[in-house]
Amino acid sequence: MIADLETPVVLIDHDVLKRNIGRAAEIARSNGIAMRPHIKTHKSVEIARMQIAAGAAGVTVAKTAEALVFIEAGIVAITLAHPLVDERKVARVISEATRRGTNLRLIADSTVGVDVIGAAAAATGTTVEIQIKVDVGLHRCGVDPASDAALQLARRISQHPNLAFAGILSHAGHAYSAATADEIRLVAQTEKETLTRIATSLRHNDIGVPVISVGCTPTVWLADGFTGLTEIRPGNYVFMDLMQVALGVVERTEIALSVIATVVSVNDRYAITDAGSKVLSSDRGPHGSTRLAGYGAASRLLAPDEPEMPVVSLSEEHGFVAHGGRPPRIGERLRILPNHACTVVNLARTLLVIKGDDTLSKWPVDAHGCVT
Amino acid sequence: MIADLETPVVLIDHDVLKRNIGRAAEIARSNGIAMRPHIKTHKSVEIARMQIAAGAAGVTVAKTAEALVFIEAGIVAITLAHPLVDERKVARVISEATRRGTNLRLIADSTVGVDVIGAAAAATGTTVEIQIKVDVGLHRCGVDPASDAALQLARRISQHPNLAFAGILSHAGHAYSAATADEIRLVAQTEKETLTRIATSLRHNDIGVPVISVGCTPTVWLADGFTGLTEIRPGNYVFMDLMQVALGVVERTEIALSVIATVVSVNDRYAITDAGSKVLSSDRGPHGSTRLAGYGAASRLLAPDEPEMPVVSLSEEHGFVAHGGRPPRIGERLRILPNHACTVVNLARTLLVIKGDDTLSKWPVDAHGCVT
Repeated sequence: MIADLETPVVLIDHDVLKRNIGRAAEIARSNGIAMRPHIKTHKSVEIARMQIAAGAAGVTVAKTAEALVFIEAGIVAITLAHPLVDERKVARVISEATRRGTNLRLIADSTVGVDVIGAAAAATGTTVEIQIKVDVGLHRCGVDPASDAALQLARRISQHPNLAFAGILSHAGHAYSAATADEIRLVAQTEKETLTRIATSLRHNDIGVPVISVGCTPTVWLADGFTGLTEIRPGNYVFMDLMQVALGVVERTEIALSVIATVVSVNDRYAITDAGSKVLSSDRGPHGSTRLAGYGAASRLLAPDEPEMPVVSLSEEHGFVAHGGRPPRIGERLRILPNHACTVVNLARTLLVIKGDDTLSKWPVDAHGCVT
Repeated sequence: MIADLETPVVLIDHDVLKRNIGRAAEIARSNGIAMRPHIKTHKSVEIARMQIAAGAAGVTVAKTAEALVFIEAGIVAITLAHPLVDERKVARVISEATRRGTNLRLIADSTVGVDVIGAAAAATGTTVEIQIKVDVGLHRCGVDPASDAALQLARRISQHPNLAFAGILSHAGHAYSAATADEIRLVAQTEKETLTRIATSLRHNDIGVPVISVGCTPTVWLADGFTGLTEIRPGNYVFMDLMQVALGVVERTEIALSVIATVVSVNDRYAITDAGSKVLSSDRGPHGSTRLAGYGAASRLLAPDEPEMPVVSLSEEHGFVAHGGRPPRIGERLRILPNHACTVVNLARTLLVIKGDDTLSKWPVDAHGCVT
């Protein structure tokens, strides 16, 4: 019984999870593109296997330590979408991928990055695939699309005996700052045009561009089409969260992840729960924005028709739920929809998965704590 | 060599740590009060032992799972300063404390809480100490000091055959919203007056008040005195952070914790590092405030005299460091002072401790992931 669980606990609705995974798979299938979803959201081998079973060609990870977990688990294709500049990390992930026969793609956006990967590849006597990251507007990593950096790097990669140029990729994370769904569509359209323009220019220079990859849940969900692209790498979509609701990407019913917390104290304004920032995280928006007003939306587990209550503030181990004069009782369980599912999972060691018939299973967060 | 470390990594300066621990111990000793520092900041048995060695009577924890770690480690006295309302958790912590002979204090601020602890104590045939939490202004947990709730609860505890009333405690977390050091002193003064007034009233009603305990780094550091109080429970002081600097509690040189990150990409505005919100946390202030403008302050590890650069934004695995036209090179290490040390440690599995002579040791974050 959920209402009896020791809390706080991260709960996953299996039906909603499966539906979200199926929806992304259908987007990929109907558009004839490949899928390497980002596992940063769930860090779970079990969920990666569901994504593969639904048709994903492999997965994307952010960290070397994450890559090692998913290589070890037998995932056959992995994109490590963070520019590695430490030769030891590159050597380690190359060596493990080679041992397990994993198709590995690394990324670079600088000559330093290309050379570090090249040196590690040469030292291990292998050939390593590199995609060039393109900055399509987030202004984080990636070559400037107005420069000829992509061409220069692609040449450098192609000329290296131990490197293979695997194409280009981007992340349109600035879509999270969009005010409307139309604005997100425009971000997706501009990204597609930028990447296809660069790919065309590379091909004119006799450089093959096998993969043109984008990844970001809002743009993948709302894009008008994927013509010219070959791959998508969304992450958050498996769970969704209040951020995606605020963006108009989904409805609340499509959120698969919630946190069950217990009311431990009640005062005239707040029900205080046992889920604070060490469970929900302090994220109020992506990339440092404070788009969302609070830290989650709480409903009463056994009285779900009662009005939703905002989590207005967080201490490390306490949540402040504004009860608006209708306080839940001490000991009562609340279900909290978080702002950002990815950072909630990052704080958890296990996910409690509930199926339609109320069976509960515990799934480990396999890549928990993989920061390097 | 720090400049060669694989990153991101949480680095602790042993000298500064020791000095901070000594300073709090000296405050306690010179004021003739006991100390049970809060381990939520470090979650480390090694550091708890340093605190005990410096004179602490025991430690304070927030979670049952944390309590179990520190009981198992042989810490002789533990205050679990979160109102427990789940009888299973109470039974578990009582049973472990009894087995190890740990002096355990629980807290309550409601009849539900007192009764849950009473039932668990009765079921295990033990006597359990309870302190009553008083709300001194944060408006989180705690009885209303203007009501007679403390008296009612103290009577209920005293009358229960398996409960012992151990006094009162408070946390003046609203000190973190203070605009000036004087305002923090006023918060400390008001807290002291509130608690001593309640203690006097309890004693007038023939209820002994063995412990009167406060805990919060800014108020402990800046308070004019502790007359009438018997115990302090500061937590953050072991490491300090930019929040304490912003409050005027300490200088930057008194911050013991930093994050070493690597520059993985550089564009015209930002040096992008491998430490994002999954390493630094998104905390910009306590209890949901956005007091601090950014997410940390970065300096160049091998060029520490270069101007400090603000971490202006965080993705999950990337930090945006505004380089102001003087970009560090790709591959270079940055040392980042975080906004909030407690939430940084909460995301780490190990702490890398550096001593004056450059010896490095790895300390586990023993209570990592203890959310329940």
